[in-house]
Amino acid sequence: MRLLIHGADVLPGTAGLKGGPADILVEGERIAAISAQRLPEEGASRVLDGSGLLAVPGLVNCHNHVAMTLLRGYGADLPLQRWLEERIWPAEARLTDEDVHAGALLGCLEMLRGGVTAFADMYDHMDAVLEAVLTTGIRASLSRGVIGLGPSWEGALREGEELCRQVARTGRGRVSAMLAPHAEYTCPTEVWDAAVALARELGVPIHTHLSETAAEQRGCHERHGSSPVRFLAERGVLEVGLLAAHGVHLEPEDLALLARPGVAVAHNPVSNAKLGSGVAPLVALLAAGVLVGLGSDGAASTDTLGLWEELRLAGWLQKTILQDAAAVAAPSLWSLATVGGARALHLPEGTGLLVPGAPADLVLLRQDGLHRAPILDPWSSLVYTTRDADVVVTVVAGRPVMEHGEFPGIDHERIAADVSARARRLLEDR
Amino acid sequence: MRLLIHGADVLPGTAGLKGGPADILVEGERIAAISAQRLPEEGASRVLDGSGLLAVPGLVNCHNHVAMTLLRGYGADLPLQRWLEERIWPAEARLTDEDVHAGALLGCLEMLRGGVTAFADMYDHMDAVLEAVLTTGIRASLSRGVIGLGPSWEGALREGEELCRQVARTGRGRVSAMLAPHAEYTCPTEVWDAAVALARELGVPIHTHLSETAAEQRGCHERHGSSPVRFLAERGVLEVGLLAAHGVHLEPEDLALLARPGVAVAHNPVSNAKLGSGVAPLVALLAAGVLVGLGSDGAASTDTLGLWEELRLAGWLQKTILQDAAAVAAPSLWSLATVGGARALHLPEGTGLLVPGAPADLVLLRQDGLHRAPILDPWSSLVYTTRDADVVVTVVAGRPVMEHGEFPGIDHERIAADVSARARRLLEDR
Repeated sequence: MRLLIHGADVLPGTAGLKGGPADILVEGERIAAISAQRLPEEGASRVLDGSGLLAVPGLVNCHNHVAMTLLRGYGADLPLQRWLEERIWPAEARLTDEDVHAGALLGCLEMLRGGVTAFADMYDHMDAVLEAVLTTGIRASLSRGVIGLGPSWEGALREGEELCRQVARTGRGRVSAMLAPHAEYTCPTEVWDAAVALARELGVPIHTHLSETAAEQRGCHERHGSSPVRFLAERGVLEVGLLAAHGVHLEPEDLALLARPGVAVAHNPVSNAKLGSGVAPLVALLAAGVLVGLGSDGAASTDTLGLWEELRLAGWLQKTILQDAAAVAAPSLWSLATVGGARALHLPEGTGLLVPGAPADLVLLRQDGLHRAPILDPWSSLVYTTRDADVVVTVVAGRPVMEHGEFPGIDHERIAADVSARARRLLEDR
Repeated sequence: MRLLIHGADVLPGTAGLKGGPADILVEGERIAAISAQRLPEEGASRVLDGSGLLAVPGLVNCHNHVAMTLLRGYGADLPLQRWLEERIWPAEARLTDEDVHAGALLGCLEMLRGGVTAFADMYDHMDAVLEAVLTTGIRASLSRGVIGLGPSWEGALREGEELCRQVARTGRGRVSAMLAPHAEYTCPTEVWDAAVALARELGVPIHTHLSETAAEQRGCHERHGSSPVRFLAERGVLEVGLLAAHGVHLEPEDLALLARPGVAVAHNPVSNAKLGSGVAPLVALLAAGVLVGLGSDGAASTDTLGLWEELRLAGWLQKTILQDAAAVAAPSLWSLATVGGARALHLPEGTGLLVPGAPADLVLLRQDGLHRAPILDPWSSLVYTTRDADVVVTVVAGRPVMEHGEFPGIDHERIAADVSARARRLLEDR
């Protein structure tokens, strides 16, 4: 497939251009050329008119439980422990493969609708999630969550291993995998040691929840005499590579430990705020040299899976806690959501940038919404005013997988209705 | 005009119904009936099919400088004082009546697009804002801001008085007015005394900025030996009625002073966050019995004028600072944006509620977005997932003023293009 996008605006500095209209040529799964001159349509299997639209890299959602669209907003506004114990865990225990497949389909479509081209997921029934990923065409890094508190953790870890092998066979280069001990507080030391040994053997990183709440931080000091970050460091987790979701309650030493190649923090501002967990020290993490991406977390806490509000909230919260309007600026926030996330997920070199040779994961945005005019600064406008509905086309690995709210070959209305019916049955059965 | 809306869902408890589909009959500017039974179309001048849509009261934006869409996001991420001194004030000094009219038109349309049916505004060139309000059909409470530091404050106050008289003549019952000394720190005591005397004479309340920043709070203690709230209380401002924007840095005594009839706080979470000003103690204000509405502030700091993200940020911030997911729940947030705001603006009795006899200010929302399914709780879904683009129809005073992104008789694309051209000229001239 050879896709040509004519005359879409690009951000200043994109592929060395000064901004304004450019032609983008995609060959196969990669960007072949970006040019201020009009490129010939000859040989293109598809031509898209980009005039008036802004072409930017797709967004990367670094932490999700995508099937939880089934439980969107369930038990909202309850205190954290009641929310988990009375609502989320009992409902999750009843989920079937079919439920997870339906929920994951909806979540993937919602992300593509909003310009997310890749995501990291941790959950159960991951075969079903993988199927939804392959069907919808999104890029993903998948992992089977392992709760280490019961006798079944070895089985779950084996499922995680099998997922890694299956993804290598069937992922079409668009899907990768990690191992996922759920968190320090849900996994005893032996689970971590087994996971690290397996990660070394398979050559995959570890995706986990880390330092999400003050209670977790206190508990780890009681259990292990150290912060969760130091505990993981001592188990060798940082050496095999780590995608750490949350990183809210970090101690000064933790920042230095996390600032090493192969380690990244997935910042989930909406989830942390909605659950009252706190605010991750984003500016301090970046200053310490930690790689940071942006994630939504599951829809049960976050409600929606697009990243535009996450981007804004990330900025608003830092400006608030640091009492400084200049604490973080739009271009830095944009990097988190694109190239930061791409590196956190070990996506192919160049992902998150519009440059020749990079994977063709990109989106075309309307710029004519009443909420956007006038566009005085392209970065500020992009970060502070864009919404899911402004995304007109989403391209993943060279293929347009969402156009004007439709998904080629996929009946999104049927999928949403199926999820609604399943959610109703699931929660009425109680 | 007699408008009939067939079979739109309503929230549980609306007009005593249990929720689900209802018919809504509007006669003239008011809601005449809401019924679970189908109402006859006979005599209706317009019938809207509401099936699949959710009918809710329109949102009320309690603090705005609507013409500042011209400066949307201008100087974003600069420190507050540099932002004001280097960017905003010099640009504002060059605004003409025509600029303000264009900016206000765009801002009113943006608000109607997102389901805002009424707003409070404070600015200069208010004739031009009034004209935009009348053209677009939105409801408004307007005020001429008075900066009291120079010799021209008496002229500005007279313009404010004239605006009150003009609105009474030409506002068609949809527009009211307040007087607006800009803030404690920009108005010496004599200005406040003159404004209070005039407010008493005219029978109008006062709209001002109050306790927005820590610097303002400290400065007022130096100038007057009291908090800004107590200073205003001692000048008699609370007695004539007050709409106080921000209320971020409040002392315990301030809450008690603000908890009186005729006094309201306009909470502007996005603006306060973006400018690094802090977080208003919303939960404490509500617990103290203070009337609170929600506002966007001007688009220069807030970027967009819709209230859905403001609603969410209001909740997220309280949950964060109080470290409690249950700190504030969706129905309370919804009240702020509707009935709270309506009372803060002294709108006609019933505004902000869907009840017979109330003004017909209402919106119809799509419920089928991929970001909304499944809808497990109507309040949670409404508050945590709705976006401007979900608003299908906006009705103000019985008249549909926005339908499917179009505005009857108004060319919104031309208006947005005009604002973009004016903003470019305004900022290039420097």
